[in-house]
Amino acid sequence: MVSIVLASFTKFGKRDDDLLSIASQSADPIVDKYREDIDFFIVSNSYSGEYNGISGLNNLLTTRFSIDGIPSLRVDNTSGSGGSAVLVASSLIESGIAKNVLVTGAEKMTGGNGKTSTAIIASLLHSEEKRAGISLPSLGGLLTKIYMEEFGASRESIAMVAVKNHENGSRNPYAQFQKPVNLEEVMNSKVIADPLRIFEFCPVSDGSASLLLTSDDNAESFSSKSAKILGCASASGSSSLSARDPLTTIVSVKNASGKAFRSAGLKPSQMDFAELHDMSTILEIVESEDAGFFKKGEGWKALVDHTTDLHGEMPINTSGGLNSKGHPIGASGVAQAGEAFLQLTGGAGQRQVKSAEYGFSLSMAGFGNCSTAFVYGVN
Amino acid sequence: MVSIVLASFTKFGKRDDDLLSIASQSADPIVDKYREDIDFFIVSNSYSGEYNGISGLNNLLTTRFSIDGIPSLRVDNTSGSGGSAVLVASSLIESGIAKNVLVTGAEKMTGGNGKTSTAIIASLLHSEEKRAGISLPSLGGLLTKIYMEEFGASRESIAMVAVKNHENGSRNPYAQFQKPVNLEEVMNSKVIADPLRIFEFCPVSDGSASLLLTSDDNAESFSSKSAKILGCASASGSSSLSARDPLTTIVSVKNASGKAFRSAGLKPSQMDFAELHDMSTILEIVESEDAGFFKKGEGWKALVDHTTDLHGEMPINTSGGLNSKGHPIGASGVAQAGEAFLQLTGGAGQRQVKSAEYGFSLSMAGFGNCSTAFVYGVN
Repeated sequence: MVSIVLASFTKFGKRDDDLLSIASQSADPIVDKYREDIDFFIVSNSYSGEYNGISGLNNLLTTRFSIDGIPSLRVDNTSGSGGSAVLVASSLIESGIAKNVLVTGAEKMTGGNGKTSTAIIASLLHSEEKRAGISLPSLGGLLTKIYMEEFGASRESIAMVAVKNHENGSRNPYAQFQKPVNLEEVMNSKVIADPLRIFEFCPVSDGSASLLLTSDDNAESFSSKSAKILGCASASGSSSLSARDPLTTIVSVKNASGKAFRSAGLKPSQMDFAELHDMSTILEIVESEDAGFFKKGEGWKALVDHTTDLHGEMPINTSGGLNSKGHPIGASGVAQAGEAFLQLTGGAGQRQVKSAEYGFSLSMAGFGNCSTAFVYGVN
Repeated sequence: MVSIVLASFTKFGKRDDDLLSIASQSADPIVDKYREDIDFFIVSNSYSGEYNGISGLNNLLTTRFSIDGIPSLRVDNTSGSGGSAVLVASSLIESGIAKNVLVTGAEKMTGGNGKTSTAIIASLLHSEEKRAGISLPSLGGLLTKIYMEEFGASRESIAMVAVKNHENGSRNPYAQFQKPVNLEEVMNSKVIADPLRIFEFCPVSDGSASLLLTSDDNAESFSSKSAKILGCASASGSSSLSARDPLTTIVSVKNASGKAFRSAGLKPSQMDFAELHDMSTILEIVESEDAGFFKKGEGWKALVDHTTDLHGEMPINTSGGLNSKGHPIGASGVAQAGEAFLQLTGGAGQRQVKSAEYGFSLSMAGFGNCSTAFVYGVN
């Protein structure tokens, strides 16, 4: 099995630095300490070409980090790149191809080339649906309407995801948004994709997060505290939304999570926290059901009951989630694993979940096109 | 260990089809036969965003192939993507994360968006060197001059790489160029990067290649003939060319090849053929030395002696190489492994090397920024 022995972050948000600097800022603390030990480098990034006019990012970074010689590659799976990169890193270690893998997730989305971020990211949609004018935000709006109608969820319960996640983000020094918001502010904010409001979507972000992974029997040589990956699995769903029935179940989340829990030999109810892919508020609720934390159609009640609050029974998105922490595409899944590391090693500061032993994270591409789930434990 | 049990190709060249069609054309024959068996999909592609305005290519393809549900991701390492993708596929199988992995390398480079291919690919260069006007072709010209001066190589010996590879390509139904050229034609063709001529560079290409990989003890359930990956390793070199000394040695090729041979327990002299990354003619010669087939400074003599001809002692680029087969970036390294499969299973037709038992391939990013080497044997 594989352990995370170190995690490092930049603050997410609008940054003046270029992509290579942003990537370095989270990687440097790890590289400075363990330059001689790292024997493989993976960069998790989706859009360096589109946003930054850069290709070969992995090679530019090994030179930048002064780890020339170390093999490297880029893993891309759009918004779910980070999860795929950690899965590949685990696989390289478990197969014996590498011993100690540095994973850096990085994206620089602001200061771009004129195309809006929404247009760049819409390039992942099925061509017919893209031509019909669908975008990722509009899918969030549509899913909200269907979910509310099907399960009788209150509009407020969905907005409460943003309230909770902004509260958590205010306790995370790396989060893009550092201020709590109340329900009224969320419900009165600008409509982006009816009925969802601007506070209910992740912002456009720059940022990076880095991890050092090694085999768990080697973890102690790096640190007395580490987080073990107990289960890890990936699954896809159709990239054609019109082929999905019902829309209120995200098959890739269900399959990846189920497999990750089975391989870990643990149940969702045993988790002490979970990081989910809340690109829009509704997604956190639907995923919390498909990952197995709540029954289908009941995830919204967990918001009303405060079950998923930081000090509730099943804290979700303690980091602030994509919603408040920000969503620099390639960095997000890596940062989720980093949050799990912090929670399990007692390093989560003001948002620490007490005596956390087990945790979960879900990294998602597109609107559930591919999901990668992880179950973590204290090493 | 991991085996290649099936390989499939499109003809490389200028194609009217879009990227998804091109990818399907090589994948479909494998998917149609083994849809139920494939449990992971990797697409090797670098520039779908830049050339085709597409992201999430892996997800679009699982839908296109009707293998929704199968986890997928994109591996990118610019020109060396294919080697990295096969390395990741091997790792997924050896770690037990996947059993049977479909790898499709695909790129659609023609019919583009106005930017020239050279400009798009120059986005992989170190920013200072890119600003100085360096491009991949110009590096080929520079290396040729230095190599000739340092080792007394004749200009003709370098051009003979193009003659040999066009001859081999004329025997490969999937090659972009199907006609032999003679030395005079090469030497009199248009200068691209002095002293190198147009016949000495790979063309701009569209195309795809697909492989099915499985663990070698499972290979027989697919086919009685397969190619085993006996050794596989990756290494980087500085992406800053000015930091390399001497320029006539490509450190990443040397390190990756050495490691791959050591892990296979075999020597370069035991190989029956090799596929090298001949983006320009000079690169084949320099790599043939750094991979260990010839002493440093003597690779050019192998052209004069016809040692590397199809029926020479050490055939290089039997497929035609990038030079004649074409170089659809993400597809090339996958097609190299496919050529090894064909040679080792007796399926290489008019370019078959007799009684081939062992083979080698080298997939390279940029100008040696990262290399991945493979040693293959008959299963």
